[in-house]
Amino acid sequence: MKKTLTLLAFLGLLLNGFSQNPDSVFIKTIFDIALTSRVAYHNLEILTNIAPGRLVGSEESIVALKFFEKYFNELGADTVYLQEFKTPAWACDSSSVSILIKKSREIHLTCDALGTSLSTPPSGIVAEVIEVQGLEDLEKMGTEKIAGKIVFFNRPMKDTFVNTFAAYGDAVDQRAHGPAEAAKYGAAGAIVRSMTTSLDDFPHTGSSRFKDAKIPALAISTLAANQLSQELKENPKTKIRIFVKSRDLPEITTYNLVAEIRGKVRPDEAIIVGGHIDSWFNSPGAHDDGAGCVMSCDVLRIFKELNIQNNRTIRAVLFMDEEMFQAGGNAYADFVGQSGKRPYLALEVDEGAFTPEGFSVDASVSIVQKLHSFKPLLEPYGIKYIIKGGGGVDIYPLKKSGVPLVAYVTDPQRYFDMHHSGNDTFDKINYRELNLGTGCVTTLIYLIDKYGIE
Amino acid sequence: MKKTLTLLAFLGLLLNGFSQNPDSVFIKTIFDIALTSRVAYHNLEILTNIAPGRLVGSEESIVALKFFEKYFNELGADTVYLQEFKTPAWACDSSSVSILIKKSREIHLTCDALGTSLSTPPSGIVAEVIEVQGLEDLEKMGTEKIAGKIVFFNRPMKDTFVNTFAAYGDAVDQRAHGPAEAAKYGAAGAIVRSMTTSLDDFPHTGSSRFKDAKIPALAISTLAANQLSQELKENPKTKIRIFVKSRDLPEITTYNLVAEIRGKVRPDEAIIVGGHIDSWFNSPGAHDDGAGCVMSCDVLRIFKELNIQNNRTIRAVLFMDEEMFQAGGNAYADFVGQSGKRPYLALEVDEGAFTPEGFSVDASVSIVQKLHSFKPLLEPYGIKYIIKGGGGVDIYPLKKSGVPLVAYVTDPQRYFDMHHSGNDTFDKINYRELNLGTGCVTTLIYLIDKYGIE
Repeated sequence: MKKTLTLLAFLGLLLNGFSQNPDSVFIKTIFDIALTSRVAYHNLEILTNIAPGRLVGSEESIVALKFFEKYFNELGADTVYLQEFKTPAWACDSSSVSILIKKSREIHLTCDALGTSLSTPPSGIVAEVIEVQGLEDLEKMGTEKIAGKIVFFNRPMKDTFVNTFAAYGDAVDQRAHGPAEAAKYGAAGAIVRSMTTSLDDFPHTGSSRFKDAKIPALAISTLAANQLSQELKENPKTKIRIFVKSRDLPEITTYNLVAEIRGKVRPDEAIIVGGHIDSWFNSPGAHDDGAGCVMSCDVLRIFKELNIQNNRTIRAVLFMDEEMFQAGGNAYADFVGQSGKRPYLALEVDEGAFTPEGFSVDASVSIVQKLHSFKPLLEPYGIKYIIKGGGGVDIYPLKKSGVPLVAYVTDPQRYFDMHHSGNDTFDKINYRELNLGTGCVTTLIYLIDKYGIE
Repeated sequence: MKKTLTLLAFLGLLLNGFSQNPDSVFIKTIFDIALTSRVAYHNLEILTNIAPGRLVGSEESIVALKFFEKYFNELGADTVYLQEFKTPAWACDSSSVSILIKKSREIHLTCDALGTSLSTPPSGIVAEVIEVQGLEDLEKMGTEKIAGKIVFFNRPMKDTFVNTFAAYGDAVDQRAHGPAEAAKYGAAGAIVRSMTTSLDDFPHTGSSRFKDAKIPALAISTLAANQLSQELKENPKTKIRIFVKSRDLPEITTYNLVAEIRGKVRPDEAIIVGGHIDSWFNSPGAHDDGAGCVMSCDVLRIFKELNIQNNRTIRAVLFMDEEMFQAGGNAYADFVGQSGKRPYLALEVDEGAFTPEGFSVDASVSIVQKLHSFKPLLEPYGIKYIIKGGGGVDIYPLKKSGVPLVAYVTDPQRYFDMHHSGNDTFDKINYRELNLGTGCVTTLIYLIDKYGIE
């Protein structure tokens, strides 16, 4: 206790220093509301219960849209509407991977199809496996070794990266481009080690980009990958059976959800806060990105509750289809482009509900400096940096119209334990970490609205 | 991805800047070993399985000692020994709290006895309840209103503190001193709302300090506390039954565990790293403080594995009885006091296996400044501060001999969800957060050994 109290005295000094400042006093009020409420937490519990696996085109995605539409209406937002657009989509009905031991025996491996995998015949595809450590191995091996086989991409995400996003960036080409590359050499199918540093039995799916030839492609869990790799060491001629039943949906109609509190002085200058409403078919999507949606809702709730006289419009946008084709982000950018009303700034919340770390800003140097000048006000709440960096996938299409982009950044250690898997469940959410994030995002938007970014 | 890569480029610059420095290069090696190993994680899984509820005096506490003794011996530490001492102890066999609705019906509330609660008669104690918000209420009410009743301390830990240790400090007087104060006014017993901001059904125990009169005292879960409070609003004459079966153990023999890698130049100058081996009877003690024990073990493992030619002795001390009487910390300070060999520095790991935040240092200004000068080397791994602050409960008794004390500080958001409860289980440990912490602690000790603190 002693040690803690001395340390807290130090942190307290930090806080007191700023509490002379009227902004600090008001920001404390924002955090008091953010930290003592369970509204966002409870919304996330409901969302993950009523609409797990809410991939674009699914019934669940519409359930999720309606849930948030009702929430915004009950909150008394000035404007709530669904912004319609059309997009291709894809759905997975079932999948399996098994090692053939004898004619009568197969060992099942935990798996999920990658989006947008081709279907196999109903009896699956049986073939030998060729294990590789990356795309560069394919060229060395060539068509002779690869054709007719199932390519197994097994380079792990590295534990040695301190930031797990770097480890993901280092390994994800295998999932994103591996199957398409394998198809070029005539592979019958592809399986990919799950993109996680965790050793467990959850398959982590994600999008795989095909250009010309499509093949069946699946993710297997890291434990399954280790098991298969061991089996191949003992018997390089091991065959496996892969099965995927999926459907291409050439054109569906879907929506982004938009809700606003109108600006009192400059209503045409909208500050956007948003996340994406869709999640992979295998995942409740609690951290990715149910959290971003309920936090965006909560920003509007706090503005309403504190009766903040916002100069600019505060606009929540819940984007559809971040995961597969980024159709919602593109459709929204087209929509505002046509309206001729360029948003003032857009902030994306899509790194999970973990302890806040900072904000990264994709804008001119002067705007980055202006936002950075707000950092002392956010430091008592855990914000370590506001720096030049990227925005986010959903808001990226707004960049071409010159909209400054901001991403909320969190502690990355646990994110890929859950990402794109059935492990991304509500019980992995800590309500304090969620609420601290909402406080940080609300505060930054409050300061942007009050002081502008010029 | 885009945003992440830009941000990582920035963080990478930080890293590269320092990687010109030979210390940075070596520290990267320390972290590579720390982050890629599952030894500490696996040890913690075993510990929480074979020795949950390892309160001082319990069989489980001896199982835990033997487990770590064997580990250190197999590791090839130069010295491994049990440092014997005698202490009073206490054990809880069972407890219950129930609301009496009718003669035939009782609603059971989730509870655990507080250490060192008195036993009740076998049939329990039935009495009316008087709910208070803190110790100051007792004086106002006086003996007239309190005598013969069960005092219910129900002031919650406040969500509005950003640091949960501050919220704990703000509320814990009810548990630590409430029952003893209530006894002064003739209370028949005391129950205390669990010390957590989480709303769930885990009781969180902890020590309650009695001076003269002892009474039965228990913690009830936060949900149970809300239920009882509601019941009392509807019927202020509600009676409850409390039951505790506990035993005072006047004098037991127990041990601290010590393991060393001898210093090659100054073997008498020992740098201590330690945590406490005991946990409350109701808890597997994964974060509190199994994590501190396995991390301390791992510091020695990394020194061995890298064959570091340490100048000073690196000494792990696993303390017994931090939770109840701090007997191990006191016995250890006496022991080294008698030996005349003052440790060079002591570092305690007892805030759980969460993402690293910093170090707090209880030492002279010049030593704090020296340790602070190491911070740039640790920043790439998440260390935000190395500042003046407290050490830790187990090492505090060394302060009187002038030993500089250091505490490892972590992200505090989730700690009190688990603290002193059955919720402090192995599945709440993230191996990356655990290993990052080990890397930070090992690195600081490496730098202290290499450069000294003068």
